Amino acid sequence: MNDCIFCQIRDGKIQAKFFYQDEDVMVFPDIHPRAKTHLLIVPKKHIPEFIFVEDENLREKLFHTVQQIINQAGLKDNRYQIRINGGGLQDVDHLHIHLLGPITAA
Amino acid sequence: MNDCIFCQIRDGKIQAKFFYQDEDVMVFPDIHPRAKTHLLIVPKKHIPEFIFVEDENLREKLFHTVQQIINQAGLKDNRYQIRINGGGLQDVDHLHIHLLGPITAA
Repeated sequence: MNDCIFCQIRDGKIQAKFFYQDEDVMVFPDIHPRAKTHLLIVPKKHIPEFIFVEDENLREKLFHTVQQIINQAGLKDNRYQIRINGGGLQDVDHLHIHLLGPITAA
Repeated sequence: MNDCIFCQIRDGKIQAKFFYQDEDVMVFPDIHPRAKTHLLIVPKKHIPEFIFVEDENLREKLFHTVQQIINQAGLKDNRYQIRINGGGLQDVDHLHIHLLGPITAA
């Protein structure tokens, strides 16, 4: 786990500008933004990818948090996209949900 | 609601080849596929977009279904992407979660 960049952010070993955090979830900007707003919603627990979220409370919490962040980030009416990569497509093996907007082309 | 294409699919007024369905959720292919596999995971209830999912059980159910479909569609190790568009970016105003794979470029 020590090599995981998101675990290191969680543990304060790598600095990140948190947009939001609580006991389960942390939200911070993608370091390579692909839109004016590009946030990552990340479980604090090291879960390698989406299909390994087995706790239904965490699953619910993650997506409820995404809904709240859409509102807080001013993306509600602003052409947002949620993206989750998996099965080898992801760039970091610690689940992260991309929230981007506004998207100019779908 | 009668003009909604996904409500019409739900009600059998428009034909679709269901990959899966139960009392809450239906899954069928996108008619304009952007990958070899391109499925839509859709709540049967007419919910205009992601931020309007207020029922926590449905929120949990939707994403649990996505996990199951990833496995059933053979995408688990196959560079999949989940996408949700909202805030005016969506093409149909009835929530649908895109599941695509394999994606050749992130």
